[in-house]
Amino acid sequence: MSSSDLLLSRRDLAFLLHDWLDVTRLTERPRYAEHSRETFDAVLDLAAQVAAERFAPHNRAADTGEPTFDGQRVRTIPQVKAALDAFAGTGLLAATLDESIGGMQLPHAVAAAAFAWFQAANVGTSAYPFLTLGNANLLLAHGSPEQVDTWVRPMVQGRFFGTMCLSEPQAGSSLADLTTRAEPQDDGTYRIVGTKMWISAGDHELAENIVHLVLARIPGGPPGVKGLSLFIVPKVLRDGDGPGPRNDVVLVGLNHKLGYRGTTNTLLNFGEGVHRPYGRAGAVGYLVGQPHQGLTLMFHMMNEARIGIGAGATALGYTAHLKSVAYARQRPQGRPVADKDPTAPQVPIIAHPDVRRMLLAQKSYVEGALALILYCGRLLDEEKTAPAEADRDRAHLLLELLTPIAKSWPAQWCLAANDLAIQVHGGYGYTRDYDVEQHWRDNRLNAIHEGTHGIQALDLLGRKVTMRDGAALEALLETIRGTVTRAWKAEGFASELAGQLGAAVDRIGVVTRRLWATGDPELALANASVYLEAVGHVVIAWMWLEQALAVEALGSPDGAEGEFLAGKRQAARYFYRWELPTVAARFDLLESLDRTTLDMRESWF
Amino acid sequence: MSSSDLLLSRRDLAFLLHDWLDVTRLTERPRYAEHSRETFDAVLDLAAQVAAERFAPHNRAADTGEPTFDGQRVRTIPQVKAALDAFAGTGLLAATLDESIGGMQLPHAVAAAAFAWFQAANVGTSAYPFLTLGNANLLLAHGSPEQVDTWVRPMVQGRFFGTMCLSEPQAGSSLADLTTRAEPQDDGTYRIVGTKMWISAGDHELAENIVHLVLARIPGGPPGVKGLSLFIVPKVLRDGDGPGPRNDVVLVGLNHKLGYRGTTNTLLNFGEGVHRPYGRAGAVGYLVGQPHQGLTLMFHMMNEARIGIGAGATALGYTAHLKSVAYARQRPQGRPVADKDPTAPQVPIIAHPDVRRMLLAQKSYVEGALALILYCGRLLDEEKTAPAEADRDRAHLLLELLTPIAKSWPAQWCLAANDLAIQVHGGYGYTRDYDVEQHWRDNRLNAIHEGTHGIQALDLLGRKVTMRDGAALEALLETIRGTVTRAWKAEGFASELAGQLGAAVDRIGVVTRRLWATGDPELALANASVYLEAVGHVVIAWMWLEQALAVEALGSPDGAEGEFLAGKRQAARYFYRWELPTVAARFDLLESLDRTTLDMRESWF
Repeated sequence: MSSSDLLLSRRDLAFLLHDWLDVTRLTERPRYAEHSRETFDAVLDLAAQVAAERFAPHNRAADTGEPTFDGQRVRTIPQVKAALDAFAGTGLLAATLDESIGGMQLPHAVAAAAFAWFQAANVGTSAYPFLTLGNANLLLAHGSPEQVDTWVRPMVQGRFFGTMCLSEPQAGSSLADLTTRAEPQDDGTYRIVGTKMWISAGDHELAENIVHLVLARIPGGPPGVKGLSLFIVPKVLRDGDGPGPRNDVVLVGLNHKLGYRGTTNTLLNFGEGVHRPYGRAGAVGYLVGQPHQGLTLMFHMMNEARIGIGAGATALGYTAHLKSVAYARQRPQGRPVADKDPTAPQVPIIAHPDVRRMLLAQKSYVEGALALILYCGRLLDEEKTAPAEADRDRAHLLLELLTPIAKSWPAQWCLAANDLAIQVHGGYGYTRDYDVEQHWRDNRLNAIHEGTHGIQALDLLGRKVTMRDGAALEALLETIRGTVTRAWKAEGFASELAGQLGAAVDRIGVVTRRLWATGDPELALANASVYLEAVGHVVIAWMWLEQALAVEALGSPDGAEGEFLAGKRQAARYFYRWELPTVAARFDLLESLDRTTLDMRESWF
Repeated sequence: MSSSDLLLSRRDLAFLLHDWLDVTRLTERPRYAEHSRETFDAVLDLAAQVAAERFAPHNRAADTGEPTFDGQRVRTIPQVKAALDAFAGTGLLAATLDESIGGMQLPHAVAAAAFAWFQAANVGTSAYPFLTLGNANLLLAHGSPEQVDTWVRPMVQGRFFGTMCLSEPQAGSSLADLTTRAEPQDDGTYRIVGTKMWISAGDHELAENIVHLVLARIPGGPPGVKGLSLFIVPKVLRDGDGPGPRNDVVLVGLNHKLGYRGTTNTLLNFGEGVHRPYGRAGAVGYLVGQPHQGLTLMFHMMNEARIGIGAGATALGYTAHLKSVAYARQRPQGRPVADKDPTAPQVPIIAHPDVRRMLLAQKSYVEGALALILYCGRLLDEEKTAPAEADRDRAHLLLELLTPIAKSWPAQWCLAANDLAIQVHGGYGYTRDYDVEQHWRDNRLNAIHEGTHGIQALDLLGRKVTMRDGAALEALLETIRGTVTRAWKAEGFASELAGQLGAAVDRIGVVTRRLWATGDPELALANASVYLEAVGHVVIAWMWLEQALAVEALGSPDGAEGEFLAGKRQAARYFYRWELPTVAARFDLLESLDRTTLDMRESWF
């Protein structure tokens, strides 16, 4: 086994991308015409290799040797810089970008698979380029040509890194309460003054420059989120084509986290006057797009960022799953229940049904989540390149609706998978000698950053479900019903599962109507998290039915391929027998318009 | 608020011990005749105070400054020793012990409440005395009078600490595979040779001596667990009343854990010849009880140890719950869904229904778990002191059955509570500046040590349910039905819940018969973990119905007392509406004799 075999499964990626999503068909479209299955495979090979050789080996070291700040500079262990240089060498940052900016124009589905290798290998180190990519994507969509040339090109080359500066100490989930100010200057620039909290990759010495994208208020704008504008605020200003003066952005301190420690997480002061570019206090900022459009611009890239969080959660779940399977195969302990002879040799723990339960649960979670992540990547490709506008719009609607699920479901269930991976390892899993405890700690962040679980729930039920008179939800339900119909017709294994999914998807429609028929947003949204979780389970069940159909299409080969397909079937079966039935109780609760949490008073705690 | 108010709730303890379990009635019995409600309350006051003042303040320091081993000695931060001296000063180690050994003869229910303060304050430091207590209990039950005088009296005085040495590197869950040998000597002692793994408190400089209780094989005994004998193996031998030579017990190294770091966890070599007491290699050991009875003796105290694990899990869940309530009351963020005015002041996050959901879920888990722990304590008191033998036997049966649940349910659900406590804290909860992340890490151990979740499941379904032709299960179902009947008659709030619990308890009977009617232990036990979890949820629902009855008996007082009772009602309602309905899917799965995990093959992963 190569070391990448404990990160992700090449066979599973090929199954999902080719046997199921048929990404090679995308090469019929002009954007991807230069590509082929061979170039896709080469990208995945490269990603697997660099992730295994440069990212995985220092995953633990980056955790135990987290970044430090001596008041002057941030120090990271040297392996981080070496890994990021290797990543820059792959050119993968530009995997999905246009050729005009030096990009590869790969499909998002393929790129997401390539990126997952790095997230599985070392989620802390890989956060630097992926944050940078989010930043670059936003500027490519909304920046001026000059801004793209000045800031994005060096990012694509791996010379500059990027951040997103939204939160402030008093305002994390509530962006309406951001107070950072942007004072317009005569030369068209702005001076930014304020404090930003939780800024990942907010300071370090890993790149020539750090390009902060900052939400701030131009005086005189409306209150709340409608008065936010977006600014480029570099750590180092430019002087022609070279570095200019240090901007007035100061690291106050690093946050010390439970996990994800390799990524610096910072409290930044903007415009306190520590540095005085061009002789004056205030951080120089450049407006992106129009004034007061900041949140809209941010939302433009938030879908991708949120799916990226789900991808990271999935990758952490996936690698821990593979590691716990490997452990369970080689750790001898005990004997089968029916074997009472204590002199018989011990069996590997994978021989115990309860251990297989824990492994199969993980498999159903992480492979289900990965299917959803790649499916969303495929939707991004459709949204961008489908020939018919109706198809692009449909992809857009599905993506809008699926984004909070693709973010939250893996964050919740691939964390649960990590918990099971620890349990499979027993006492050893509780030590820092094995990887699984770190994966569990790292993964815990994913339900918090880029919008908490509760925020995703409000986004799904309060915004996405109601958008365009329910068009997104209708598109989802129709699409799932399409899968159910195909499964009915397919007979065999997939058809066994179809009825169960058909009933569950009908229930989504009924429950959603019931909630909004109250006409009372407070009541409708009170149990939004349960709604998110129940719909999430149905969506993953759908992903498993899709996979079951792809499995059936592959027939009954012998050998390793047959065993791979048998494993897929059993994981699908597990999800339908063990997981999908749990949604009934959640839908019942929602349908009853339960007021338990709504009626609970603060003073009763 | 005093600092103990963030550890446990005095009002809740009083409610459970007095309003519900009526522990003062125990003072009518000879063993507890010297006690009164006042002495019980004084013990709880003392525990709360010492826990808050001496244990809580170094909880974080013991985590960041975990014990180190320089090859010669183990170093712990000095606050640990100071706290343990303070604990010894309280005399609480002997809370439940007989007066003849210097004990207080407190009821176990009261002692469990007192101990929970220390577990909530600092689970790592409190493990030292609680492990010692388990050791002392076993020797008091099975040691010779001389062994009690030599080893137990110094433990009661806080001078010696104790350990339990079961696991070996190749045998954790599978005690049948222990290989440590005990060679009999002419003088009636034994020489112990072997390696023990995962030994908590296995070495340190916190006490004059460490009394290891070691499972080992006397040559010629039967294979498997029936050939295990139990030995006292002190770190330092005795010479008359003073210390004698160093025994041949050597610390190989410390395990570096995810949490629970304040407790040393060790790999120990016995009898390697590093020390040569009385001129010979081999660790001197003293047989406890009869040869080959080691496991039986261990089981004698395992119930208490396992309930102690559940108590620790509960205490960690409880304190994190209180801390997240306090945080949610003071952290402003956002506005109610119905309030669109961004210039209105932010509200404390406890005003958001989704935050109350997370707080109420925690409350239902941790108060439900605490009720079960104290109920088990009350059963221990019944088992020991009920006047009628039938009552003692019934208590014994219930305890046997409830022990795996009292161990596993809190380990699973109070960990889930800790996860929610982090989520309530948002990004701050993910930092090491707040306690909740440590509680979550510490708590993760509880599903592993003293028998994993899967081992508890096999114990419940494979041993406890079938013992004495199902007498223990019958006793439990009868007892729960008794509560249901009382609730029906009580009308009001409790009667609303009764029908739901009645149906669930009937289901336990049906499902259990169905499983064992297969006549196939492998099939019956394949999904034992699901059985444990489903029955656990029903048991906690029963605990909530018991509490609801106690609430109703207290009428409708005004003020803080009324709000306390309203909180209890709402938490009970939460458990019945949100949690108990989830068992239906699990019972359905069990009743279907699902073979998904059983049929999964190793080669399919």
